[in-house]
Amino acid sequence: MYRTHTCGELRKSDVGQTVTLAGWVDSYRDHGGGLFVDLRDRYGKTQVVFSSDSGEETQKLSRTLRNEDVIQVVGKIDPRPDGTVNPKLSTGEIEIKVEKLVVLNKCKTPPFFPGQQDMPGEDLRLKHRYLDLRRQQMQNTMMLRSKIIKLMRDYFEEQQFIDVETPILGRSTPEGARDYLVPSRVHHGEFYALPQSPQLYKQILMMAGYDRYVQVARCFRDEDLRADRQPEFTQLDLEMAFCEMDDVIGIIDGLVTKVAKEVHDVDVTGPLPRMTYDEAMERFGHDAPDLRFDLEIIDATDLAAEAEFRVFRAVADAGNRVRGMCAKGAADKYSRRLIDDMTSMVQDDFGAKGLAWFKVEADGTLNSPIAKNFTPELLAKFKERFAAEPGDLILIVADKFEVTCKALYGLRKKLGAELKLYDPKAMHFSWVVEFPMFDYDEEEGRWVAMHHPFTAPRPQDVELLDSDPGKCRALAYDLVINGSEAGGGTIRIHDNATQQKVFGLLGMTEEDAKGRFGFLLDALQYGAPPHGGIALGIDRWVMLFGYLDNIRDCIAFPKTQRAADLMTEAPSTVDRKQLEELAIKVLRLDEVKK
Amino acid sequence: MYRTHTCGELRKSDVGQTVTLAGWVDSYRDHGGGLFVDLRDRYGKTQVVFSSDSGEETQKLSRTLRNEDVIQVVGKIDPRPDGTVNPKLSTGEIEIKVEKLVVLNKCKTPPFFPGQQDMPGEDLRLKHRYLDLRRQQMQNTMMLRSKIIKLMRDYFEEQQFIDVETPILGRSTPEGARDYLVPSRVHHGEFYALPQSPQLYKQILMMAGYDRYVQVARCFRDEDLRADRQPEFTQLDLEMAFCEMDDVIGIIDGLVTKVAKEVHDVDVTGPLPRMTYDEAMERFGHDAPDLRFDLEIIDATDLAAEAEFRVFRAVADAGNRVRGMCAKGAADKYSRRLIDDMTSMVQDDFGAKGLAWFKVEADGTLNSPIAKNFTPELLAKFKERFAAEPGDLILIVADKFEVTCKALYGLRKKLGAELKLYDPKAMHFSWVVEFPMFDYDEEEGRWVAMHHPFTAPRPQDVELLDSDPGKCRALAYDLVINGSEAGGGTIRIHDNATQQKVFGLLGMTEEDAKGRFGFLLDALQYGAPPHGGIALGIDRWVMLFGYLDNIRDCIAFPKTQRAADLMTEAPSTVDRKQLEELAIKVLRLDEVKK
Repeated sequence: MYRTHTCGELRKSDVGQTVTLAGWVDSYRDHGGGLFVDLRDRYGKTQVVFSSDSGEETQKLSRTLRNEDVIQVVGKIDPRPDGTVNPKLSTGEIEIKVEKLVVLNKCKTPPFFPGQQDMPGEDLRLKHRYLDLRRQQMQNTMMLRSKIIKLMRDYFEEQQFIDVETPILGRSTPEGARDYLVPSRVHHGEFYALPQSPQLYKQILMMAGYDRYVQVARCFRDEDLRADRQPEFTQLDLEMAFCEMDDVIGIIDGLVTKVAKEVHDVDVTGPLPRMTYDEAMERFGHDAPDLRFDLEIIDATDLAAEAEFRVFRAVADAGNRVRGMCAKGAADKYSRRLIDDMTSMVQDDFGAKGLAWFKVEADGTLNSPIAKNFTPELLAKFKERFAAEPGDLILIVADKFEVTCKALYGLRKKLGAELKLYDPKAMHFSWVVEFPMFDYDEEEGRWVAMHHPFTAPRPQDVELLDSDPGKCRALAYDLVINGSEAGGGTIRIHDNATQQKVFGLLGMTEEDAKGRFGFLLDALQYGAPPHGGIALGIDRWVMLFGYLDNIRDCIAFPKTQRAADLMTEAPSTVDRKQLEELAIKVLRLDEVKK
Repeated sequence: MYRTHTCGELRKSDVGQTVTLAGWVDSYRDHGGGLFVDLRDRYGKTQVVFSSDSGEETQKLSRTLRNEDVIQVVGKIDPRPDGTVNPKLSTGEIEIKVEKLVVLNKCKTPPFFPGQQDMPGEDLRLKHRYLDLRRQQMQNTMMLRSKIIKLMRDYFEEQQFIDVETPILGRSTPEGARDYLVPSRVHHGEFYALPQSPQLYKQILMMAGYDRYVQVARCFRDEDLRADRQPEFTQLDLEMAFCEMDDVIGIIDGLVTKVAKEVHDVDVTGPLPRMTYDEAMERFGHDAPDLRFDLEIIDATDLAAEAEFRVFRAVADAGNRVRGMCAKGAADKYSRRLIDDMTSMVQDDFGAKGLAWFKVEADGTLNSPIAKNFTPELLAKFKERFAAEPGDLILIVADKFEVTCKALYGLRKKLGAELKLYDPKAMHFSWVVEFPMFDYDEEEGRWVAMHHPFTAPRPQDVELLDSDPGKCRALAYDLVINGSEAGGGTIRIHDNATQQKVFGLLGMTEEDAKGRFGFLLDALQYGAPPHGGIALGIDRWVMLFGYLDNIRDCIAFPKTQRAADLMTEAPSTVDRKQLEELAIKVLRLDEVKK
């Protein structure tokens, strides 16, 4: 037996016992007469002391110890002498007088120490992940992750959900462009695809009468490198039969309440607030608004239409929008130069034509390079519209609606952080509902599903599928935490006719649809119940509940942005023989047809 | 809201309430005056009654109902009339007098009904899995699976294990021949491999100080088609630091006790019995012996050496073995013809040269075609050796040790089932330990790892690595349930030098080893603790605890033996564009280099 106790459990009440501990040398201090080692494992640290009482051999061996060596010690628990108690350590009242030392494994000088203050670059951390994962911060995050997932599983079991595993080796889907493919050895020229989500399997489970399904599911997407996403990610995936939107939302409200309580001891009382998609875009410029702070978008298109200022007038006349925000007390904090930076940001990052601004002076007048283009009456109306007071900064974007949304969303995010408009430990949960069914893809010249092709329209909007698809709203709902989409779900189409119609709107021929989704269209005719569900992004939940800002810090073995595992060096070349068995060949890049 | 209650929860105490139920028409009986429908969902069945009280419209609509239609009914709960109570149904004391009927979805005539007695062939069931999964047996199995996995997770959480997810997109391994490969879009000509197990990641987690890791992990193996295995399977994967074999076995003994109690209310008291590999081969001819019954193998090589019978003598003289079993009371049950069948079996399936047999007559004499080749004294010795009594059947195989093992294992399995030597609902759990480190691969002319290359030798056998690897025993342990390997684990090598030595024995050059496992060899030098673990086959556990005999019945969406999903028709061909993005080309079979 390597140990009788862990390094986190001995207390003053254990004094006098002889124990065996094992762990890593976290640090050592040679005090002349004795060597003090902090012995570390996942559970804590215990001070072990080598002195002349340990015997000559043991004391000699102890002086060879270095940080991260793995050792085993046998010794008696002593109370720490007066004045040396460490109240920050759970074992801080005791120490071990070592009688025997076994060096289980030495650590050669590592590229970095888990305990060091300044961490090296992320690539080195990822290459030596076994060292990086020893850091307290990483261990805390992995334990948080394990805890959150366990809380979820317990909750859904209480709610009578069945955990069902769905295949990883699946079939290529309509969003196939982002599928990871797996060549089949048995079926020449054919491929499996790794699932982007278990969507169709969970719908099939509802049709099979499983009523409530849940799974912590691994999903895969061969993303553009630009997106800072992981090629594989984990979602809490669930589906319910005989349910409406309120049923699904109600279940998740309960989950949020439980996790918030258990993780941060925060009382969240449901039902969580809801906002329509249109309202979110109007008030916050985004479908995942950060509601930890106000700073809402205010529309001033009607006022702009009255202005002599031709930029505003032109926008208003073209049916576009003039919208802005009033940052309370921010006038002093943003110099001309900083405002110029913001102008560049909205232009470069969001394609806005410019950024107008007004500072409210102490005497109530509006200071702005463009103020001269407005009558005093109109300036007063602007000030009133934005409820601006002395010291405030008004920022305005005049552009197409979509551009004003993006630009003002970006500005709001920036101002929220810079003006410290929220407590960084605060958490805000809400729902956005009534998303459009479709986006129009100008390039492809057709509708694309905003969520996915299996989403049901609102019953009152069904006829819009024929008359005006762009106006059709979906039974879709996104969970938003602190301005991040933390989950998204929909009620699904459960009748064959509507499903065929939606496939058609998305540009699929009947044959296409049958080839790709024949089994779904069949299943819909063999007694499919109404059903719906949701998927929660586990990596995102861990990041938000852990107050982290790098998704890779939430995953034990993440990939880089270029989808590589730096530790194992995956992907890698493989034996020619393996490829021959699969009957595939790697083409030179110049052989690939353009 | 689609329902106020499920179809399994209404009782006599609910009588008088008006409720809404939804579900599938499980069956209907038209009694002239009224239509009785059994409405079904996952939770149970409830009888709903359409009569003249339901109104003309509703009654008319009710007569269009067919099995598997999905409906919603509103009605009042009535007690069933005297004499119509169904004690087999939890809802059998009540029925619903329907006031309103909504047909949520019709079911067109399906290829088979979930409720029908005779099931069609498996292919049709797999193609229409949404119908097959509606069967009570399949639902019970999926709920059993969900329950077993939840019990495991709860248990390991209690035992302070952390659930950590390891990557699915990994690196190709030494057993690469069975890897599923995934071409990388970003890294031209490179491939990920799907994991055959999370082996190295979990060892890395121990080196990173996670102490106790657990995961329900999906694993992949591109098996030979002969093996009736699934290309993807699920294992309960765990690893522990600072542990010895007894620690891992002790943890699993606790798990077995818990699952046996919760699933079948059976008291299993640990520690579970253990047997060495050598003993298992001697007594049962296999490393996963079925201990639900005796019928042990008995050695008679020494007696055979005394015989005039040249077949036996030759075998004994060549250093091979003469072994057999005594089936109590089986003499009458096996005619000459049936014994001939057994002879064919041991010859064709296991490569044995033949099968000798003796029946013990009522007078104690041995009846056998070969009896004349033995002296009466020797016959008496044989009888004594096999403890044979009148009515018993002795079966003997004389061959190389390995062949006697295979043949007698096969015979034992057959006799155990045919002679009903065990209660089919009985469960027996045990361990087999002290496996050899290596098998010698005659074809490749080198040692291969019996478990995997990371398995530690027994401390007392370390020097055998140099002197006689074939005799070296591993710190390996297999969990056996009812004669099936239900889990296997080892203590791992935790020092660089031993790991390098074992890689060398397995035929890897230093460069090979570094190329494939450089990160492991590195990690072993940066403070690796002693560690070990185990993996349990979840599909197998479900099969054993569910008393099933087809692994595909334990998986919601299994693949066929040819690794195809008949419902979604995966694998499938993909768009040329997808392959171009990956810069790979499918070769014609005649282009593949032989």
